[in-house]
Amino acid sequence: MSKTVMMRAIGAADVLQIEDVQISAPKKNEVQISVHAIGLNRAEIMYRTGNYVIEPTFPSVLGYEAAGVVTALGEDASDFKIGDFVSVIPSFGFDEYGTYGELINIPMHAVVKHPENLTFEQAAASWMMFVTAYGALVHLGNLQKEQYVVIGAASSSVGVAAIQIANMLGATPVALTRTSAKKQQLIDLGAKYVISTEEQDIVSELNRITSSQGVNMAFDPVGGPTVGKIMQAMAPQGMFFQYGALDTRDIQMSVMDVLGKHLTLRGYELFEITTDPKALAQAKQFVYQGLASGELLPLIDQVFKFDDIQKAHEYMEKNAQIGKIVVNVQ
Amino acid sequence: MSKTVMMRAIGAADVLQIEDVQISAPKKNEVQISVHAIGLNRAEIMYRTGNYVIEPTFPSVLGYEAAGVVTALGEDASDFKIGDFVSVIPSFGFDEYGTYGELINIPMHAVVKHPENLTFEQAAASWMMFVTAYGALVHLGNLQKEQYVVIGAASSSVGVAAIQIANMLGATPVALTRTSAKKQQLIDLGAKYVISTEEQDIVSELNRITSSQGVNMAFDPVGGPTVGKIMQAMAPQGMFFQYGALDTRDIQMSVMDVLGKHLTLRGYELFEITTDPKALAQAKQFVYQGLASGELLPLIDQVFKFDDIQKAHEYMEKNAQIGKIVVNVQ
Repeated sequence: MSKTVMMRAIGAADVLQIEDVQISAPKKNEVQISVHAIGLNRAEIMYRTGNYVIEPTFPSVLGYEAAGVVTALGEDASDFKIGDFVSVIPSFGFDEYGTYGELINIPMHAVVKHPENLTFEQAAASWMMFVTAYGALVHLGNLQKEQYVVIGAASSSVGVAAIQIANMLGATPVALTRTSAKKQQLIDLGAKYVISTEEQDIVSELNRITSSQGVNMAFDPVGGPTVGKIMQAMAPQGMFFQYGALDTRDIQMSVMDVLGKHLTLRGYELFEITTDPKALAQAKQFVYQGLASGELLPLIDQVFKFDDIQKAHEYMEKNAQIGKIVVNVQ
Repeated sequence: MSKTVMMRAIGAADVLQIEDVQISAPKKNEVQISVHAIGLNRAEIMYRTGNYVIEPTFPSVLGYEAAGVVTALGEDASDFKIGDFVSVIPSFGFDEYGTYGELINIPMHAVVKHPENLTFEQAAASWMMFVTAYGALVHLGNLQKEQYVVIGAASSSVGVAAIQIANMLGATPVALTRTSAKKQQLIDLGAKYVISTEEQDIVSELNRITSSQGVNMAFDPVGGPTVGKIMQAMAPQGMFFQYGALDTRDIQMSVMDVLGKHLTLRGYELFEITTDPKALAQAKQFVYQGLASGELLPLIDQVFKFDDIQKAHEYMEKNAQIGKIVVNVQ
C-alpha cells in the first residue's frame, strides 16, 4: 500500500486527503518510483480549486513533480534501471498520473535522471522551473549573451529559474516585482536590476537600464497593462513570452511599437516543450548540465512534511514564498 | 539627360515635378536601368506627405519599384549584363535611390531578372507585393497546405498577392474587406471566402468557415479592434502578422487566447526580407517561379503616363483601386 493524496471534490486545501492506495505494477513504458520529495506547483492549486485547464473527475490524483528512486520498470521502460535516482518532469494529465504519493507510476518520457550533487528535495524542485524558463528563453527565444531579458513575477520559482538561465547564458536579467520588499533578495539571486512595478515607471527604468537600446526579451506570467509598457521599451526584433495570465485583463499595446520594431508577442506553455520529444531531450540535457555544474540551483523556500500537504497548499496560496515549496515524503 | 521626378517640398501631389537630370555612370555594385514602367507604392505617398519612417531632405528622388532594361553596369555588378530585362525590389532609402525616372542607378542587390512572360508593366508591379506577402506567409510563417489564412485589406496589391500565394501553397485564403462592394472581385481573384468587416461578425464567420477549428494565420495591414477578434478565432499555434498600421489605435487582445492557444503576434516589414541576403535570394526564387508558372500574376488596376505622375498619386490617395497602379515611362 502507498500513502497517496486523493481529491474527491473541488475546494479548499482540506479536500486533499491522504489515503492508503494499492499501486499496480508499472505498465508498458512506465517507471515506478519510491518518492522521496514532491515539488508543488501553482497548477495543482488551480486544479484543486477548479480553475485549471482540465476539470477533475473524482477520485483524482494530482501532482506534477517529484524525485525518488526507481523500484520497478514496466515493459520497454529500458532507459532506467532499479535504483536510479530520478525526477519527474510535468508532461501528463492528472486523469492518468500524479506525483503526490509514496509510490507512483510515471510514463518513461516524463522521467529524468538527476545529477548526484542534488538532494531529492532539490531534484523535486528543479524540472518545472528550469524547463519552463528554458523553453522560452533558449528553445524558442534563443537568448544571446549580453542581451537584456525582463522577467515578470521574478520571485516565483520560474522567475528565479529564468534569472539563473539568463546569467548562465551571459545575458542580463532585469527582474520585475510588485513592491521593493523582495528587491535585495532578487539581487542576491542573480538579478542585475530590479524594478518595482507598483513604485517605479517601467518604461523609463528600462530605458535607463538599457541606455535606450531597449530590452531584447520579456518572460512574463502576469499580463495586464505592464505588457504594453514593456513592448514600448523593447529593442527591434524583441520577443515577449506570455506564459501565464495572473492578470486576466486584455493585453493592450501600441501597433506602432509592434510594427516599427518587428516585435513578437507569443503565448507559451511548458507543455509545448514536454510534448515534443526532441525539444524535451534538449531541455533535459541543458538543465542537467546546468544543475551538474551548479550554474542552475533550485531555490527552495520551505519544506513541509507529507502529512502537512494541506498546510503546504495553504502556504502557497498566501503567495509569500520566494522559490519552491517542497514536501518531504520519507 | 533623364526625365526624373524630383521632390523639393512635402505636400500634395503637385510637389512631384519632372526635371531633366544628368545621371552619372553607375558606381561600384550599381546597375543602370532604362525604365519602362514604375510600380507605385503607398510608402511613396507617405514619404511625399511627410508621414513615412524617413524624413526627406531636398531635393529628393523617390520610388521603390520599376522594370526596364540594363544599359550600363558599375564595377563588380557582375550578376547582370547589358540588355537584361530586370525589375527593382525595394531595399534602399530615397536618400540614395529612387525609381521615378527614365534612367536610374540601382544597387545590384535590389535588382532581379524577371520572367520573359511578363510585360514591363507587370514586372514593375510584382516584386513589392509578392515579396511582402512571401516574407510573412512563407519565410516567417511557413504556411502549409490546407491551413486557413485570413488576409486583411485583401483588395490591396499585397492582399491580392497573399491570396495568390496561399492558393499556390494549397492553403485557404479568407479575404477581409470593409464592405461587400469588392466581394465578387475578391472571389474572382482567388479568395475562397470573403468577410465584410463592417457588415459581418468576424468571429462567427471565421468559426463557421473553419468549422470552429480556427484559422492558422493572419496577415493584416490594418490593426485596430479586428486584431483581437481574429485572435479569438485562431487555431492553436496560430500566427498573426501585422504588416501595417492603417488603424493607429492600440491593439487589444485576450490574454487567455494568446496563452491558451500559444498564439504569436508579430510585427513584420518587407525590409526584414530585403536586407537579409539569404532570405532575399529565397524570395526572388519563389516569386520568380510563381511568376514564370503563372500561379502568381500581378494585378494591375490602372496605367498612367509618366507625365501624369501627379494624377497617379492622387488616384492612389482615393483608395479605389484593386491591385497595382503603374506608370508607363516609354
